Amino acid sequence: MTPGTIHGVGLGPGATDLMSVRADRLVRQARHIAYFRKAGRAGQARKIVEGMLRADVCEHAMEYPVTTEIPVSDPRYNQQLAAFYARCVDHLRALTRNGEDVVVLCEGDPFFYGSFMHLYTRLQAQAEVQIVPGITGMSGAWTASGAPITWGDDVLTVLMGTMPEDDLTRRIRDTDALVVMKIGRHLDKLRRAVAAAGRTDAAWLVEYAAMPEQRVTRLCDAAAVAPYFSILLIHGQGRRP
Amino acid sequence: MTPGTIHGVGLGPGATDLMSVRADRLVRQARHIAYFRKAGRAGQARKIVEGMLRADVCEHAMEYPVTTEIPVSDPRYNQQLAAFYARCVDHLRALTRNGEDVVVLCEGDPFFYGSFMHLYTRLQAQAEVQIVPGITGMSGAWTASGAPITWGDDVLTVLMGTMPEDDLTRRIRDTDALVVMKIGRHLDKLRRAVAAAGRTDAAWLVEYAAMPEQRVTRLCDAAAVAPYFSILLIHGQGRRP
Repeated sequence: MTPGTIHGVGLGPGATDLMSVRADRLVRQARHIAYFRKAGRAGQARKIVEGMLRADVCEHAMEYPVTTEIPVSDPRYNQQLAAFYARCVDHLRALTRNGEDVVVLCEGDPFFYGSFMHLYTRLQAQAEVQIVPGITGMSGAWTASGAPITWGDDVLTVLMGTMPEDDLTRRIRDTDALVVMKIGRHLDKLRRAVAAAGRTDAAWLVEYAAMPEQRVTRLCDAAAVAPYFSILLIHGQGRRP
Repeated sequence: MTPGTIHGVGLGPGATDLMSVRADRLVRQARHIAYFRKAGRAGQARKIVEGMLRADVCEHAMEYPVTTEIPVSDPRYNQQLAAFYARCVDHLRALTRNGEDVVVLCEGDPFFYGSFMHLYTRLQAQAEVQIVPGITGMSGAWTASGAPITWGDDVLTVLMGTMPEDDLTRRIRDTDALVVMKIGRHLDKLRRAVAAAGRTDAAWLVEYAAMPEQRVTRLCDAAAVAPYFSILLIHGQGRRP
């Protein structure tokens, strides 16, 4: 029997019609879909494809054993996640050995942060894996902001809100355009870093880009905690004839 | 008469089925399309939509008066481009005043570098403009490379090959993951900067990502001059359970 293929499919920032034509076709035809989610939640990737699936689709929800309950620095965090990814890979491999193709739903772009890459590296030697790139969450955010992120020869820096404050400040001072993701509980620290870099007036917070709850605010007007789907932007001011 | 809308539509990195479902629909329905190109060339954006257009579509090619004939630092460069963009805006505005919608074809993502933003800022106060984000050329490149660009809390820096060599070196030394665009004739300088930063072994050159001519090579094996559609990548090595 010919083994099946695993497709890591980027779904884009949130609106269903912002996935690629290739992704749309794969999702609609899929006999098996798999996706990550927090236990007890619907999962954002699964929500994006609501209404698109075959009536006889088999769904494989992969539920994280831990998200924010254990700090990332604790060795148990990595141990539990590594064991979890190994179980997911075994499950997907069993399907492909039976000749089934599987579409793994990925928010944004599969190779830009995100969880699918942890399966990808484990699967690479064992199965046929195809990647469909997607529109990133940050593209969704700067489109929502109504202004281009980079012009001419601007330098763009992408940072995670989890970084130490001094590193954030130094890097925010040293870039033309800025994107910060993974903000959540780090918003106050980030706000201080942006202020220390002298760029508060230029900073925007985009929540739920390309989703029905989309909201764009100046950083100085934002609440104390940002939702999970939040992206901070500073737009470049490069050459513009 | 209700004025028409101008749609700045991201087409993605090159493959027709990597444009979004929203972009695909707008392109297929369009009565008027507009796109930039170098005089005497077909234009990459126009090539991507070949075979998708209505039989009665009106095409508006906007031909750059100058590309690399005058250095960017020469004041005549900016003057000629500014006059050109003003003419384009007048042309598009005349169409919308007659109630026509226009789809402006944009490679990659309209708000990530690119030329459409020069029309966008001029049109904003005068016409209804809608933006459809797209998969960036850099997403196409890291997908082609077969490896994720960023993991965990990696810092990503996006640079233009046009930068001075010392700035390139300093920034390449100071990032986890790297994307360099606008390489072309700057490839030798870039190669020296990557070497000075001690990262030659990690650097990949992707030419024509997501196009039929796609090619992925180690930077040390690349030719002396890179084609226009070339992107240099260094993949991040961040946290991976």
